[in-house]
Order: sequence, then structure tokens, then C-alpha cells
Amino acid sequence: MSSAGSDAGDGGLGAPQTKTPGEKASGPVSADGSGWTRASCPCCAGGPVEPLVLLQLRAGLPRETKDWVITLIATAVKQGGAGLSAHPGEEPSGDIIVVSAPRCTLLRAAEELGLCKPYRTGDMTAFSYHDRSNFRDADDVQVFLTLAERQYIVKYELEGLRAQRDLKIPGLPEGRLLQRRDNIWQKLKAVGVVQGMFPLNDEDKLKALSDCWYSGNQLTQPLDKIHAYFGGTVAFYFSFLEFYTWSLLPPAILGLILTVFSGSVNKEAMDSISDSKVAAGDDDDDQTVSGHMIQAVFSMLWSTVVIEMWKRRSTLLAYRWGTMQLAERFSEPRPAYHGALGVNPVTGRVEPLFPAWQRELRMALVSVPAVGLFLGLVVMGMLGFYWGEAQAQSLHAEWDSLLSSVVLYLPSVAHIVYTNALGTAYRQVALALTEFENHREESAYNDHLTGKILVFTFFNYFAVLFHIAFYKQDLPLLRKRLASLLIITQLVNQVTEVVIPFLVDRFLSAPKRKEKKEDPQEDKFRNQSSLPDFPGLFSEYIELLVQFGYFSLFSCVYPLTAVLLLVNNLTEIRSDAYKMCKLFKKPFSAPVAGMGVWQTAFEVLSFVSVISNCWLLLLSPRLQELGQESGVTGTNVVLVAVLMEHLLIMIKMVLAKLIPDEPDWIRVKREQNEFISMQALGQQKQ
Amino acid sequence: MSSAGSDAGDGGLGAPQTKTPGEKASGPVSADGSGWTRASCPCCAGGPVEPLVLLQLRAGLPRETKDWVITLIATAVKQGGAGLSAHPGEEPSGDIIVVSAPRCTLLRAAEELGLCKPYRTGDMTAFSYHDRSNFRDADDVQVFLTLAERQYIVKYELEGLRAQRDLKIPGLPEGRLLQRRDNIWQKLKAVGVVQGMFPLNDEDKLKALSDCWYSGNQLTQPLDKIHAYFGGTVAFYFSFLEFYTWSLLPPAILGLILTVFSGSVNKEAMDSISDSKVAAGDDDDDQTVSGHMIQAVFSMLWSTVVIEMWKRRSTLLAYRWGTMQLAERFSEPRPAYHGALGVNPVTGRVEPLFPAWQRELRMALVSVPAVGLFLGLVVMGMLGFYWGEAQAQSLHAEWDSLLSSVVLYLPSVAHIVYTNALGTAYRQVALALTEFENHREESAYNDHLTGKILVFTFFNYFAVLFHIAFYKQDLPLLRKRLASLLIITQLVNQVTEVVIPFLVDRFLSAPKRKEKKEDPQEDKFRNQSSLPDFPGLFSEYIELLVQFGYFSLFSCVYPLTAVLLLVNNLTEIRSDAYKMCKLFKKPFSAPVAGMGVWQTAFEVLSFVSVISNCWLLLLSPRLQELGQESGVTGTNVVLVAVLMEHLLIMIKMVLAKLIPDEPDWIRVKREQNEFISMQALGQQKQ
Repeated sequence: MSSAGSDAGDGGLGAPQTKTPGEKASGPVSADGSGWTRASCPCCAGGPVEPLVLLQLRAGLPRETKDWVITLIATAVKQGGAGLSAHPGEEPSGDIIVVSAPRCTLLRAAEELGLCKPYRTGDMTAFSYHDRSNFRDADDVQVFLTLAERQYIVKYELEGLRAQRDLKIPGLPEGRLLQRRDNIWQKLKAVGVVQGMFPLNDEDKLKALSDCWYSGNQLTQPLDKIHAYFGGTVAFYFSFLEFYTWSLLPPAILGLILTVFSGSVNKEAMDSISDSKVAAGDDDDDQTVSGHMIQAVFSMLWSTVVIEMWKRRSTLLAYRWGTMQLAERFSEPRPAYHGALGVNPVTGRVEPLFPAWQRELRMALVSVPAVGLFLGLVVMGMLGFYWGEAQAQSLHAEWDSLLSSVVLYLPSVAHIVYTNALGTAYRQVALALTEFENHREESAYNDHLTGKILVFTFFNYFAVLFHIAFYKQDLPLLRKRLASLLIITQLVNQVTEVVIPFLVDRFLSAPKRKEKKEDPQEDKFRNQSSLPDFPGLFSEYIELLVQFGYFSLFSCVYPLTAVLLLVNNLTEIRSDAYKMCKLFKKPFSAPVAGMGVWQTAFEVLSFVSVISNCWLLLLSPRLQELGQESGVTGTNVVLVAVLMEHLLIMIKMVLAKLIPDEPDWIRVKREQNEFISMQALGQQKQ
Repeated sequence: MSSAGSDAGDGGLGAPQTKTPGEKASGPVSADGSGWTRASCPCCAGGPVEPLVLLQLRAGLPRETKDWVITLIATAVKQGGAGLSAHPGEEPSGDIIVVSAPRCTLLRAAEELGLCKPYRTGDMTAFSYHDRSNFRDADDVQVFLTLAERQYIVKYELEGLRAQRDLKIPGLPEGRLLQRRDNIWQKLKAVGVVQGMFPLNDEDKLKALSDCWYSGNQLTQPLDKIHAYFGGTVAFYFSFLEFYTWSLLPPAILGLILTVFSGSVNKEAMDSISDSKVAAGDDDDDQTVSGHMIQAVFSMLWSTVVIEMWKRRSTLLAYRWGTMQLAERFSEPRPAYHGALGVNPVTGRVEPLFPAWQRELRMALVSVPAVGLFLGLVVMGMLGFYWGEAQAQSLHAEWDSLLSSVVLYLPSVAHIVYTNALGTAYRQVALALTEFENHREESAYNDHLTGKILVFTFFNYFAVLFHIAFYKQDLPLLRKRLASLLIITQLVNQVTEVVIPFLVDRFLSAPKRKEKKEDPQEDKFRNQSSLPDFPGLFSEYIELLVQFGYFSLFSCVYPLTAVLLLVNNLTEIRSDAYKMCKLFKKPFSAPVAGMGVWQTAFEVLSFVSVISNCWLLLLSPRLQELGQESGVTGTNVVLVAVLMEHLLIMIKMVLAKLIPDEPDWIRVKREQNEFISMQALGQQKQ
């Protein structure tokens, strides 16, 4: 989109100049370039063409509209097109368009996105089109850019299309007018011309990837290959999943040791589940308390160290994958961004402008209260549930009939219905709010949307546990609840993520997808479009976050948590990988420099865990008994706990400060880049 | 020092090539250029020369040594000299050297330091020597660079001098050998050749500055002029002092209102000072407690907002003063930095290298424990004092004689002696530790040194107060102590900072400094060297920090604190300004982008203040009585306080996050710069 703002090309879209490709029978979608629109720049014309993205059009779309879309895709960027190549499929009037991208468009977009690539010297350097000859492999764009990057660039170019002057989409009823600077792609989607767009799978590469990913007994994942094939967001998810899983090993070992060495822990857990109060010897008590304490202090320090080490790893991966210097703020705003047209003071391009303070105001005055309201509704629902349960029980005790035992279930049912309705409503509200905040960058939009939903979901999961732990102060119930949640959640997840997908694939999808090598390419593409859309990584991440929450917030209550989670996650990696490769359409995946808002979420959680663990320890009945025996007043015990908490938070902060967020050699590389660009700036303006 | 690493100039120092200036009678130090060494580059030779810095040599130094030093100063940077101009004073064999700097050296150093200057477009842009013609006023270096910057550059060039090969300083006994890459200036100071170096005052400018700074009734200070004359560190101190003073206005007004509206506060304060327990009505109690609460919550939010607003102001000042992009990490390391010689991976220059992890290890394993040890010694001293006092009192009660009443004073005396000895020892230890940490940048060195001393000093001041507040939980004593500290400290400060300096100046210094216009320039310079060295801003900053600490940590105990501080600071501005201008040698002042470690200190303090205020409120006896009356148990009151504290800290963190650290327009300028330099990098490598 580097010059989409220029108005120079007036001969662009209204009156197509390039040969309308649909006039002739287009023939099979092959890689030899026949049937494809010619690349707009001479250097990229000819040679094999790689199908990257499939557009699903509305069935029965007028020929002239489809031709117009193809022309739009193939027109040079300077003339207001996307600068890509398009193929109309075997039937010129069919409902798909296959899109590819010529080398120049890919390289220019790579510069615009701020991708780093290996320079002559071997260092990862922000790619520059002018300087392309000094980058390794820049000639062979299939090696230079990963498949995921190439496909993302196609999406980026298409979604960035803006009308250069008022125009009408041919073949559509009147009133479908595009005004100057309107986003064309959004309009096409809105009027239903484009029904979907997804990146095409490369069967050979996918096979190779899945072989070394989940089908064997590999202990590590082929992260670089995942990144190359599925792109940044997916690769970061799997990297974190792997990192986090292995980091569960130390607490799992500690949990096992504690359980074995102090048999009482086990016994106590049993006791509390059966709710029987068996008097245990004093010796055992001491052991249990000290076991709890070891577990709590360890898990606090552990969570800090893990998150800090992950930051280092994340920086390293971002460097390796060339996403350290993404230039999203300098490229075109995301399509739905709106505002008065003006000159961007930073880049000097004409684009919609929207003042940052207004966004902040909207967040502070609208979004935050709205989210708060919903969190309040969650709490109200919970309180209502408890109230209802108490009512139902007293009613049942009064009547004691069959009808009244049905009444006993009413509060639970009502609560579940209420929670689900609230969740659905909240999702809509969060979407509307984030849209209303009008973020300029796609990543900021995603982060704010994810953040909103995540806070709510998390609250929903944990409100009850916190209520039990800190308001009811009923540790045995908490332990019972936690154990059942851990086991049930894992079982449910395993079933929904491994068993059902396998069955669906085996008995429903596989027969449909019986394709032979001889099948025409187009049918294979159509087969891919029959797969369901990839639902996104939100549910995967939230699962990890909730796990991490169970573990770090309440770990001292149930020392075997880590063991259970470790076992669960080892299978989780495989089932997620299987899902990605087999059961869904391939998703687009933007180049990203990390996990975004999820990292913050994990950090916040590891902070809250210190507070939670301290208070759980304090509430531990044995500790309170001990205190009473040694004649310390309750108030003083609380004060000691407060002191402990503050001390541990301080240690945590110091620890987080001491572990640098980037490895030393990456810091050097970064400073090198800064130095070189500082010098370049000084030299250039002679 | 841009090419100090190059070994090209071999004809440099050992065999001076430039005309030895001491051969002829050098004549008066005048601005017309006579008597000065010629600038090493032709473009700067001739024209008026401005005396910038005075070097004080050892009396009776051999002529050849002085000549060698002058040659060293005047030799071009490429040949291993400082590239400056020197004047031997009126007596060729006298003990001073006056140093000036030619335009080219100044401009090159300005680029090396990363100073920003107004570009053709009006934006502040990192100065580039190649591009100098596009910068406003770059021809007239006296306008382009401030006096403080010019003087700092002289210091920077002199202190960066390194021997290009092994050499011997002429005129000194054998063994005074300099090895290759040794720092020459450190050696000259170590062997006593150079006894001192200070920037010269410009009497006219100083007069103009003081007129609009402190002699009238100005409400604001001429910050830009202060920055131009005294430089960055001093200007930032006075900016902060002013900002902080005016920000005391809201709490001062609130304090007055609370005092007036609830007369009981006053009465209670009186009561507690006289330690008489007068039963007050319940109505008054409520008012007092709510007054305390208002004060506490207000001061917590206030401290956050003030610090965040200061950050914005600080960024703005840094932009205005061109210090936003200081390139200290890319310039030469500070003189005392040592390590194995190697190639800096970032800049590619040969310099001592010292791995960062080793520095961190030294900090973690040596510095932190050492500082902790000293803090422990402070606490031990305090405990010893209390123990001693108790002993003395019981002794006195037993004996009750004149001798035993002398014994009563012993603990205090011992404690004061102990504290002072500890403080002195700690200063030495802190200096050694920071040197041992081997920081590369001057600013990092200063920050770590200041940080160490500051933690200790602060601990020293506040340990007793915290002990009274939280261990003894004796609020009346705390109030008494705080009031007396505030009043006594202010009185002492006013006397030491206003009265004594005035007296000294009037009766001791002024008669000596009776200089006439006709006096030779050199005598005026000598007069300046008779002033005492400027003691640095540490004591000024720590005074502010302790003030801020009294106020934000314990404000709810004594609501009139802010009023007292406001009055104090309004005079403080004037007395500090007077001190700067009249009573000390002018200090060198590096270009800085902010207050450095002091900002962190204020931030940390404003954090601790939330915790402190919450617990003080909790300890408030009225609140506890109220709790008991309404039948709430002590433990529950504590729990509510904990909840409150966590909530307030959360609000504080959100608030700090919501107020952006830089004004929007500066963010735009910064991003502009980043964008331009990104583009420059891409374009340059064609």
C-alpha cells in the first residue's frame, strides 16, 4: 500500500485497462502461470505462479462484477489496485477467485510491515526494498518470505484497498456507491460479493510439518516450521504452550516429593474431601503447614521466574522470526479505522485521523464502566445463586417433597442460564466497545478486544473460587472444588479436543475429503473451503490462563496440581497441533512480536497469586490453631501475613527487574541497529 | 573523541609539532585570540576566542610539563589531542591554563553526545555535523550551543584523552609512564599536575540571570536561561522544585480547610502533644476520622498524579532542551571504565569491554548484600539506642543522682556518634562499590552511586518514624515527632541556606572579591577559583525527598504539613538560586534527559505512601474505638484495611497507566524521528 494515497493513477479501476481475464476460458489453476492475470510490473511477469489465497464469492454473481474484482486485484498498487495476481478458477463464471502475489508486491509489503530478514552479514535487519540485493535469498521469494507471510501479505493488500475516487461496483444494483477513500474490501464483504477468504494449504508442506510435529513421540516441536507454515500468532501460542508445559516440571516434582514425604498431606486431602475431622498428631500438622508454606513460596517465585524467562524466550523468537521491528504504526491503518481525513503527521500520508485523547476518553468513560458493570453482574449472579440455594434448601427442609427436591436444582439451572446469557451479551458488547474505541492498529484492536473478553471470562471462572476461599473461608470446600475442577476440566477438554475431533475427522470429514492426486486443483481448493473456520486461539489461551490461575492462585491447597497439568499439557500440545493441521481451514496469521495481551494477563496473574497464596496460608486452619496455641492474637497473625505479602511482592519485583527481558546478544544487535540508523540519518541529510 | 581510537596520528604528543606557546610572553587573556594556541582546523583559526574553562595546575610545575599539557589540549583530535584552544595565562609559568573550544570541535562533540537542536523545519532534531548547514544558527556556535554545553564539551574532550602509544609526561620524575590507551587526564590528576578544573562564570550573563531569577518577586523561574547558563542537571532540579512547590497548593488548601472546619483536629493535635487524654464528644471523633481519611486518600492520589504529571513535564523539558536522544551509550565510555580492550560490537570502536552479566553479578552478589548490611547496622543502632535509653532510665530511677542524669544523655550521644560514623563509612563503601560495578556510562555511574547513598540516607531519616508508627504504634508520639522534625528541619535549613550564606557572602567573601572593571581578566578568573566547590545537588534533592516522604507517608497524622512545606519551598527556590549564582564555583553540568534516579525515588516513595497511610489510618485509635463500638473484631478491621490498601494500589497503578508519560505532540515528534530514521536506513543502503 506504499503509495495507495497517491491520486496519480486516474486510469485505474473505473475503466479497466488491463485485459479482462474472464473473456477467455481460463483453464485449470496451475502453477505455470497460464490463466493468471499478468503481474503489473514487468520484472515479475511470467514464470510459475503460486496459489496463495482463495476468495469465496457469492454464488450467481454477475460476470461483470467478478471481472471487476479480478481487475481490481491485478491492477498495480500505484493505480489503486492490490498489485496481485488472480485466477478465476476453471469456470470463468464460478464462485471462486484464486489469488497469488508477484515478487515485487511481496517485497514492498515486507518492507512496509517492517519484517526483518537475514542481511548479508547474517544479522536480522529490517528489510528494505531498495537494498534487496544485500539480503540473503531475496531473489527467491518462496525462501525469503515464509508461506504464512506471503499469504498474510495478500490479505493485507486486499484489505487495504481504498477507492481512489467515487465509483460504482459494476453488476450490482444502484446505490452500491463507493466514495473516495472508502475501503473497497469492507464494502465488498458488506454487500456480500466476497463471502470469505482463506489461505490455501500446501498439502506436501502440511504433511511434512505434521510428521515432525505430532505424529511421533517428539519432545519438542518444530517451532520454526510452524512459524513458516502457520505464521506468528500460532507459532507463539505453541512456543508458549511448550515452554509453560516444561516449566511445570519443577513444581510437579516438588508436589510429588511433598506428597510422598508428608503422607499427611494426602491424608488431610482425603479428610477434607470426606469432610471428616480426624484429629491428627501435632507432628503431622507442623509438616503439613510447612509443606504448604514451601509450596506457596515456591510457586510464587516460580511464577515470576517462568514469566520472566518466557519474556526472554519471546524476544529471542521475535528476533529469529524477524518481527522485532514491526512497523505497524507507520503502515496503513486497519480497514475499519475511521476519522476525518487528514495528513498523518508522522508519515505524511493522507489517511483518517482520530486523536488519541479521544480514544482514551472513550476507554475511560465508556469501556471501563461497561466492563465493570458486567463484572458486577457476574458477582450479582453469584450472590443470587447462593441466596437462591439457601432459599431452596430451607424450602426443601420445610416441604420435603419430590417437588421441593426439584426446586433444589432450580438455582443452579438459573445460574447457568444467566451466566451463559451474560457471556453472549458481553461478547457483543465487547466487540462494539472495541470498535467504538477506534484503534488504528490491528494489533491494538485485537489486544483490547481480547483483554476485555479475557477479564470477563477469567472473572467468571474464578469468582466462585475466590468467594469460597476468601469470603466463606472454607478451605476444605475450596480443595474439593479445585480438585474436581481440575479433573473435570481436563477430562472435558481431552474429550472435546482429542476424541471428538478424531471421530469427526474419521467418520464425517475424511470420506468427503477423499481426494486423489488426479483431482483437478480447483476441487482440492473447494475441499479446503468445506472445512470449518478456525475459531481462533482465544479459547486455547484462556484454557492455559485458567490452568495457570488454578495452579498459581491456589497451589498450596492442592499440591498435585502441577502433576495433573503437566500430564494434561503434554497431550494438549498434540491435540492442538492435530486440530490446526487437519480439522480447520488454515487461518491467516499476522507477523507478531509476542503473545500481546496474553503476556500481560499471565504477568498480572502471577502477581495476584502472591496475594492469594499469602492469604490462603493465613486462612489455613492448622496455622490458626498453631497461632492460638502459641498465644498470638489473630490480629497479629494477620499483620505478620501482611508483612510477608509485602515482602514477597518486593522480592518478586526485584526478581522481575533482575532478569533482563532480552538476552544480552539480542540487546547488542538491537543497539547496533539503532546506532546504524542514527548514523544513516546523520549521513543522509548532507 | 570521534576518532580517538584511530592510531593514524603518530606525530602527536610525544614530539609536539605545534609551536610551543609558552616560548613568548603570552600576554593578557583576551577574547581577541592573541596568546591562544591556534585551532587545529583552518576553518576555526582566527577570530575571537571565548574563555570557557580554567585549569588549576600544581604550583611550581616545570615549564615543560605545562607546555606539554597545553600542546596536548591544542593538538587535533585525530592526532590524539583534545582539539581545543589553550591560553597559558599572563605568566607563561603561572599555575593556570585557560581553555576554549573552536567551533568544529564543539559541533562534532555535540553530534557525538546526541544533542538535539532546532532544524530548518523548527523541529528538534539530533544534530549531525554533515548536515550542519540545515540547522538554525549552526554558524554562530555561541547561540547554537548553550554556555553550559560548550563548557561541558571542553570537560568531555579533556577527560576523554587517551594515550595513543606509551609515553612519558615531560618534566615529571621517572615512572610516570602512560601506557597505550591509558586515560591521560586521570593520570594528570592522579600525579597532581592538574589540581582542578572548573567552568568560568560569565559575569554579565550571571548578572542578567540572577536579576530575573531570585532578586525580584517572580513567581516563575527563567528555566530556559538557567538551562543555558548552568546546564541540564541544575535546570532539572530547579524545574522539579518549582513544579513540586506549586503542586503542594491543593493539599495545603485541603489541609487548611480540614483544620478550620474540624476544629477538633487542631485540638486533638494539641491534646496529643501535651499527652493529656481529654474525652472528646463522639461527633468530633467522627469528623476527625473522616478528616484523616479524606487527607489520606487525597494524598495518595495526589502523589501519583503529581509524579505522573512531572514525568510529562520532564519529557517536555527534555524535548525543549534537546536532550531526548542523548547518545551516551554510543559515545566513549567514562574515563574510569576499565576492561579488556576489544571492539565494541555496537559502534565498532576499540575500547575497554566489560560484560554486562558480570556487572549484574557484582551488583547482586556484592553491592546488594553490602547495602543490606549497612541498613541492618542502622536498624541495630536504633534498637541499641532504645535498649540503652531503657537501661539509662532504669539506672536513673535506681540511683537518681546528678551522675545518673548525665547517663540519661549517653544513649543519644552514642547514637549520634554511631550514626555519623556509619554515614561516613557508608559513603566510602558506596563509592568503592559503584566503582567496582564498573559502569560504562557516566549517568549510570551517577545513578547507582546516588541510589545507594539515597537508600541509606532515607532509611536513616525514616527508620525511627516507621518504628514509632508501626512497631510502637504510638500515634501521638509520631505526631509530636513529625511536627518537631518539620519545624526544626525547616528552621535549620533556612538558617544554613539563607542566613549563613548571606553572612558569609557579605562579610567574608565580598571584601575579597572587590574587583574593578580595570582588573586584568586573569585576576577575575583567580577570584572565581577562590570560591568553594559546588557540593552537588544530592543534599538538595534529598531534602525534597525527605519532605515529600514526611508529607506523603504520614500526612494524615498532621494535616498542616503541606502548608508548612509550601512556605518553606517558596523561600527554598530563592536561597538555592542565590547559592548557585553567588556562593560557589560554577559546576559542570552534563546534558541530561531528566532527574535520573531521583525520579525513581519519588515514584517508589509515592507507592510506599499508600501502604503507610492505610496502616496509619488503621492504627488511628479513634477508628479502633469506633470498630469496637460497632462490634467489629480487630482481625476484620485489619482485613478491611488490607482490602482498602490493595484497592488503592490498584487505582494508583491504573492512574499511572492512564496518564501518558509524554504529551501527545511530543509522541508525534518522536515517531516522526523514528520514521525518518527508518526511511533513511532503507534509502542509504542502495
